[in-house]
Amino acid sequence: MRQSQLFTKTRKEAPADEVAKNAQLLIRAGYIHKEMAGVYAYLPLGFCVVEKIKQIVREEMNAIASQELIMTSLQRKELWERTDRWSDEMVDVWFKSELKAGGEVGFGWSHEEPIGEMLKGHLSSYKDLPISVYQFQTKLRNETRAKSGIMRGREFVMKDMYSFAADEASHVAYYEATKPAYMNVFRRVGVGDDTFVTFAAGGAFTKFSHEFQTICEAGEDVIYINREKGIAINEEVLNEETLSSLGVTKDELEMVKTAEVGNIFNFGQQKATDLGLAYKNEVGETVAPFMGSYGIGVTRLMGVLVEKFADDKGIVWPKSVAPFTVHLVGLNLEDEVVRDWVNGIYQNLIEHGIETLFDDRDARPGEKFADSDLMGMPYRVVASRKGREEGTFEVVTRATGEVRRLTEEELYADFDNDPNT
Amino acid sequence: MRQSQLFTKTRKEAPADEVAKNAQLLIRAGYIHKEMAGVYAYLPLGFCVVEKIKQIVREEMNAIASQELIMTSLQRKELWERTDRWSDEMVDVWFKSELKAGGEVGFGWSHEEPIGEMLKGHLSSYKDLPISVYQFQTKLRNETRAKSGIMRGREFVMKDMYSFAADEASHVAYYEATKPAYMNVFRRVGVGDDTFVTFAAGGAFTKFSHEFQTICEAGEDVIYINREKGIAINEEVLNEETLSSLGVTKDELEMVKTAEVGNIFNFGQQKATDLGLAYKNEVGETVAPFMGSYGIGVTRLMGVLVEKFADDKGIVWPKSVAPFTVHLVGLNLEDEVVRDWVNGIYQNLIEHGIETLFDDRDARPGEKFADSDLMGMPYRVVASRKGREEGTFEVVTRATGEVRRLTEEELYADFDNDPNT
Repeated sequence: MRQSQLFTKTRKEAPADEVAKNAQLLIRAGYIHKEMAGVYAYLPLGFCVVEKIKQIVREEMNAIASQELIMTSLQRKELWERTDRWSDEMVDVWFKSELKAGGEVGFGWSHEEPIGEMLKGHLSSYKDLPISVYQFQTKLRNETRAKSGIMRGREFVMKDMYSFAADEASHVAYYEATKPAYMNVFRRVGVGDDTFVTFAAGGAFTKFSHEFQTICEAGEDVIYINREKGIAINEEVLNEETLSSLGVTKDELEMVKTAEVGNIFNFGQQKATDLGLAYKNEVGETVAPFMGSYGIGVTRLMGVLVEKFADDKGIVWPKSVAPFTVHLVGLNLEDEVVRDWVNGIYQNLIEHGIETLFDDRDARPGEKFADSDLMGMPYRVVASRKGREEGTFEVVTRATGEVRRLTEEELYADFDNDPNT
Repeated sequence: MRQSQLFTKTRKEAPADEVAKNAQLLIRAGYIHKEMAGVYAYLPLGFCVVEKIKQIVREEMNAIASQELIMTSLQRKELWERTDRWSDEMVDVWFKSELKAGGEVGFGWSHEEPIGEMLKGHLSSYKDLPISVYQFQTKLRNETRAKSGIMRGREFVMKDMYSFAADEASHVAYYEATKPAYMNVFRRVGVGDDTFVTFAAGGAFTKFSHEFQTICEAGEDVIYINREKGIAINEEVLNEETLSSLGVTKDELEMVKTAEVGNIFNFGQQKATDLGLAYKNEVGETVAPFMGSYGIGVTRLMGVLVEKFADDKGIVWPKSVAPFTVHLVGLNLEDEVVRDWVNGIYQNLIEHGIETLFDDRDARPGEKFADSDLMGMPYRVVASRKGREEGTFEVVTRATGEVRRLTEEELYADFDNDPNT
């Protein structure tokens, strides 16, 4: 894409009321717009990052045989009253409103209840199981405090998945299969080494749930990890019982600040029982299925990537989620010969299948470089009069600052040979 | 996809309270789930149709240089008060709620105000224009009455686009360019011949707006058309002045019932003025841009397709939006030889790039055929023991009922030669 066509502009300062680094940088670089605290619009570049993260998540969920659908934001009061999750005393993040036609409605902050209710129309026999469904839903949560940018929003995109199984063995097998699928997601977006499957509070149904916690200074959580043993424990369940059951002592653990990018819950049969969801088993008995729920905070994950990889010049995107792989910065474009040459380079990059943002603007080199650093594409390719004369480009790797001079052939070969681009 | 893996089931009856044909059929065939009146979840097959329609719209909007983004559902009261569109007296479809942190919020039923506000951070000079942006947004509207299934929802997917131009000529040029782009969409989903660019009430800024009205008995509108002259007039502006300005008499017009699948509004400079959006022109004056807004009701369009093409057996999808092109119905699958052979056919169809739903269920032929008719894929391919022995398949075109017997080679050739598949 030609940057002169991109309607968003970078800016020197973030809004004064924005205290989170992720939102400050994303606003300054033109990725997001702040509607109000905890509520952000995703402008073309930001929309692109969200879609790339979603596509990675989608591929991994499809790979474990989950089926994508989309539930509704509007929620019926009666449905949530049945499980005693309607009242503000029980759930403190509801947005609620009145139907003009009469009656109260809520706005979806979670979707176990409607998923369970919907499934009553499709699940009747043990032959229908197992079932796994997921959605990318815009969740609305009436958070009292929203100061973490896109890492804790009042409106945010979440992938939530729900599994249903006829027996405990297949239920546990699916629950366990989600762990590598989740880790694939976090590895593919570049945080695999810093993300830990973490023992956390299990709630009423099971002893533990599992959180996916990514080391991040801006995170809200504290966990204790032992990298060698591959053990991570949320501080909320750090006690003698947990330690001894995991065969680790507190001395062996390192305390780290983290952000929860995903979580998985095993509900056993209790949740389906509460929801009134049941099926007929092989001997004709009516029984509740085993149920699990599995979340990934898509927009939160995007915020974590900004927080973790940004430097003092701006955002640094992992290649897998960057809006463009290459930021082609054209200089001396007022010279027609140079301009034609750089336009040709831009076309060639596109023909090589390399996603390219072409800074074709009439602006000073310093401004172009600063914007390029702020916007954070993995590679900056500088094409100038001098480069044309010498037949080379300056190629800067954003993450490392490494500067190389490559010929055009070397440039394409570099991307053709890089499995990540 | 193997139908035995698809979690949704067909059903004989729609919910008793569902009166719209589109929703009755879509519920019975497992495409959607009714959450409450006017609020539907999209199950895997329905989600797939919505995504296919969205992709067609996306391609056509990208082709007229619009940039995709996503605004928010949560809306600030102060923003809408500025344009006097917050109060229930002025806008009767608001859902509103209270922030726990204090203050009232609304839920987006339209997005001119937030788009205009967002653009203030990116539009400063005439050099920044023109700009066109669009989104696929889940709109929430507190409709008093919602009895038209997915054709008028309280929660529905809309493509809304907004254009901004420095002068009237380029503004009008863009406005006019959206008409063929919109007609491309309607042609591609199969209703091009029955969709009319229709003169409608223009509101405060212009004499006319333009609606895209599709002939549909279940529609809520009445328009008057002359196919030869290519003229269509909404009854709301059918008067002597309109008729004479268009050079047509009432006798030359045919009255038809229609559904509004799209609309485009020319706001002139008034809307941007109301929103406080301005830029510096070439001589340094601060002026308001010309603005247009352009909607397509994505889920409504899906409903219109069901209403228009369904027959007494069920849904009939146009190929461009069908979840699968082929419904491969396997019979005699209890015979291992037949089963292996049909499995091979399924693999071959996939390898030929033909999207295929494979009914591999243990069910009676009559049940499979009835489900296939109800679900509405464009082609049914029946693979049975008899067919294996004869080396042919029964191929039924859902829309026409045409039955052919084709060899496997003829089958692939048929799809390879069909530009629509």
